[in-house]
Amino acid sequence: MPENAIARTPTPPYYAVIFTSRRTDGDQGYGEMAERMLELAAQQPGFLGVESVRGVDGLGITVSYWSDEKAIAHWKANTEHLGAQEGGKKTWYADYCVRVAKVERDYGKPS
Amino acid sequence: MPENAIARTPTPPYYAVIFTSRRTDGDQGYGEMAERMLELAAQQPGFLGVESVRGVDGLGITVSYWSDEKAIAHWKANTEHLGAQEGGKKTWYADYCVRVAKVERDYGKPS
Repeated sequence: MPENAIARTPTPPYYAVIFTSRRTDGDQGYGEMAERMLELAAQQPGFLGVESVRGVDGLGITVSYWSDEKAIAHWKANTEHLGAQEGGKKTWYADYCVRVAKVERDYGKPS
Repeated sequence: MPENAIARTPTPPYYAVIFTSRRTDGDQGYGEMAERMLELAAQQPGFLGVESVRGVDGLGITVSYWSDEKAIAHWKANTEHLGAQEGGKKTWYADYCVRVAKVERDYGKPS
């Protein structure tokens, strides 16, 4: 998957997890963890795709797409992911918000 | 509103419009249009907030939040916005995807 690709998701409905965050200063292992989490998420049941961008000002948006709520719950409870969530709260993120949303329709200009 | 802030949205449910795009090369008036659209969106009825990031690799994610589908339809039909949508298709975006999703729940680490 190219890093800057738009996710090729199926026909709705499906779920989106919108994760918006602001980083603290310094890397402190963040880059390695973030890459690993994208890799690990892609291996989970019900994973449909992900889009992730961090701006130079520190704001980041990662949207992951999932088949259903069960797949989201399963990924949230993944042991390695739980460790990353702890590190995120304590070290990597100044603040963040997770929004779970049901995609009802989509349209666009395909590549 | 600070540029890199996380939107302070109300208790769900509400709607999210997830707009993912890849830019063509060169500015061609894009920066000015993008800034104007954020400003104009914020003036629309039912607007709840927006988060927008573009990475150095050209991928961008803008998530705008709305009270309901009617507010989304109203903003989509805004005359100035329609002009920007045309410019996006023809000039500014290599490809893009718009996903309309109903936010069912949220949680996070507040600033």
